[in-house]
Amino acid sequence: MAPPIVLTTDFGLSDPYVGVMKGVILGINPQVGIIDLTHLIQPQNIRQAAFVLGASHRFFPQGTVHVVVVDPGVGTQRKAVLLDMPRVKFLAPDNGVLSHVLADYLDDPPERPGVVAVPPQCHGYQLTETQYWLHPVSNTFHGRDIFAPAAAHLSLGVQPEALGTPLSELVWVPAPQPVEENGQVLGEVIYSDHFGNLITNIPERLIGPGSSARVGIKGHRIAGLRTTFHDSSGNADVDLVALIGSHGFLEIAVPDGSAATLLNVGPGEPVKVSLPRQS
Amino acid sequence: MAPPIVLTTDFGLSDPYVGVMKGVILGINPQVGIIDLTHLIQPQNIRQAAFVLGASHRFFPQGTVHVVVVDPGVGTQRKAVLLDMPRVKFLAPDNGVLSHVLADYLDDPPERPGVVAVPPQCHGYQLTETQYWLHPVSNTFHGRDIFAPAAAHLSLGVQPEALGTPLSELVWVPAPQPVEENGQVLGEVIYSDHFGNLITNIPERLIGPGSSARVGIKGHRIAGLRTTFHDSSGNADVDLVALIGSHGFLEIAVPDGSAATLLNVGPGEPVKVSLPRQS
Amino acid sequence: MAPPIVLTTDFGLSDPYVGVMKGVILGINPQVGIIDLTHLIQPQNIRQAAFVLGASHRFFPQGTVHVVVVDPGVGTQRKAVLLDMPRVKFLAPDNGVLSHVLADYLDDPPERPGVVAVPPQCHGYQLTETQYWLHPVSNTFHGRDIFAPAAAHLSLGVQPEALGTPLSELVWVPAPQPVEENGQVLGEVIYSDHFGNLITNIPERLIGPGSSARVGIKGHRIAGLRTTFHDSSGNADVDLVALIGSHGFLEIAVPDGSAATLLNVGPGEPVKVSLPRQS
Repeated sequence: MAPPIVLTTDFGLSDPYVGVMKGVILGINPQVGIIDLTHLIQPQNIRQAAFVLGASHRFFPQGTVHVVVVDPGVGTQRKAVLLDMPRVKFLAPDNGVLSHVLADYLDDPPERPGVVAVPPQCHGYQLTETQYWLHPVSNTFHGRDIFAPAAAHLSLGVQPEALGTPLSELVWVPAPQPVEENGQVLGEVIYSDHFGNLITNIPERLIGPGSSARVGIKGHRIAGLRTTFHDSSGNADVDLVALIGSHGFLEIAVPDGSAATLLNVGPGEPVKVSLPRQS
Repeated sequence: MAPPIVLTTDFGLSDPYVGVMKGVILGINPQVGIIDLTHLIQPQNIRQAAFVLGASHRFFPQGTVHVVVVDPGVGTQRKAVLLDMPRVKFLAPDNGVLSHVLADYLDDPPERPGVVAVPPQCHGYQLTETQYWLHPVSNTFHGRDIFAPAAAHLSLGVQPEALGTPLSELVWVPAPQPVEENGQVLGEVIYSDHFGNLITNIPERLIGPGSSARVGIKGHRIAGLRTTFHDSSGNADVDLVALIGSHGFLEIAVPDGSAATLLNVGPGEPVKVSLPRQS
Repeated sequence: MAPPIVLTTDFGLSDPYVGVMKGVILGINPQVGIIDLTHLIQPQNIRQAAFVLGASHRFFPQGTVHVVVVDPGVGTQRKAVLLDMPRVKFLAPDNGVLSHVLADYLDDPPERPGVVAVPPQCHGYQLTETQYWLHPVSNTFHGRDIFAPAAAHLSLGVQPEALGTPLSELVWVPAPQPVEENGQVLGEVIYSDHFGNLITNIPERLIGPGSSARVGIKGHRIAGLRTTFHDSSGNADVDLVALIGSHGFLEIAVPDGSAATLLNVGPGEPVKVSLPRQS
């Protein structure tokens, strides 16, 4: 079987929209496997989708075609794009949703929102070739009419350059970056998951082994990083633990509970890590 | 790969019911692909399921087998039926859930609920051949015991007429129809989606180009139809927009927001369109 | 196509965790079909997952590989195990989540929690062979790093004994058992489904035909078992009905409504069945 098509949208699960996209895909390529990454991105939350894609794309097989439909500008002049990367391809609106994915290929990602050059290992295209679309094309459901059929044609072996015209820049909505100063790392929560684990923008490499780091969030202090949700280290604030999560970033959690609920915080909440002095 | 089996139920996603249906299908036809249309039809809401199926069925490949389990009368004398249409097949309880799909094949659909003759291009069957069922057959889960195995056998090439006895009529629960009078179209909201977009029963053909139509709902007036959620037309009521949605019907929406929440309305809410006088 | 891999987790549907597991599986075995049983097990609710698996496993094809990730002890000393049964295989943390499945193969299941010997028809293994894992192995997401890749390798034909070392005992968290005394059966609700149907631990065989049994729950009495949600038997308490559900256990339901909501009860609620005296 060819590599899968992977769908990420803010469509929710109660409407037929996702199923219809799958019907359109299978009408063009009956052999392809289709996987859901998630359809519960908050409506129009481009930053959330960008994080989810950035944290996930390296776990999919070579050749995977990702379709991303978080698209507040559907039907306007925003571009529909194809990003052809060394391992996988992305079809998405050009609204910043691919920023975290792109960051993995950039040596010096811009700090401010705007546009970014397509990295040299990648190729960008604006989708313009209407023969690969479903007609009539609606103004409000490009997932069904443009992205799904384009993905199906790609999965059949149509070459990326056949789908549109080369594009040298993409819209860039970077993640907030942590700041290091005076032995501290100042970051923030960027994602809160189903368990209420708070995932920050502070990567493992800024903390080191971390056993004696102190983590502060909303007036609470957590002494030392754990290695699992349930290890036996002592802790001044018994409910909260800090650890390097499966995404490779600092996470704040409550074992068998929800840190998001306990602290009543979400994305944007400041997090401070105090590192031990190096002797 | 053969055409897919598509599942539509009110089973929700927390219980194992949908997964068990898939297990039964794959036990009979290990090769078939299975797609979810949605499992979040409101419990026993036949009208909602009928709309979802009517709006979606034409996007699935030729030969698709749809399984619909919104079945308040499971285990009673209501029939289990197979509707064999020119493009796709439906397995469902005979309770009206196929009415919107049938309407696409009827020249003059009845206005009132009751029964309707199976259209001449289609064939109807009552499922009676128990050798295609899973035994023992429960009284409460025909999705698992009758519909899923019947769909799997159909996908293996069993002929429709082998599954039961011909049926000439099906239960009919029509959508409310819009009324035209004095240059106005009087309709209603028939579906509210995940984004809070309000989809009405007023089709595009009753409005025409629509740029100067006025739309009224719950005391609000919307001047002119948009072509996208975000185009730049002026509007007396800044939050609300009206447009022809991807289903082909008039929709009322709030860009980057929820019209259902803003207006606090849902299915059944009256909608009035005033058309410009033709010169 | 080979038998499917079936996923059961408490990961929810909003995060990319389930999709990432599927990506890892398809990177190892691009041909395998993957089915979701449910991902809405309540976080860390081992008993709920155990019930769902016990009620479902016999509906999946011979050779199915089940992956279960309800894993509060992830990263601790709890074992990761493979249970190789006559029909299907299970990969899971060793925390009791397989207890209901195991019970189907035990002549005399222990009444108390603890450990239980792997039944003679089955084989148990502790997953220890790290060459079948995804590296680096995180401490918090063994679904992605251990269970998903092990399942993919099994589906490719790797022998169970290659994945680890034999294991003779598994953690045992039995369902509460009903008690028979003085012509009564004393049980309890063990699962409340999406419709609000209350599924008890009282199996059909303890009630017999049941037409004249009386069922008591939270001060309500239900006279006689129905055969469907909507049959016509008389009933002193008009809203509630009792019947043998599709799982084979006594269920308490409200036709077109929710017994869980009406009674405001859930798992643990006592249920008493009074049997007619046998002449």
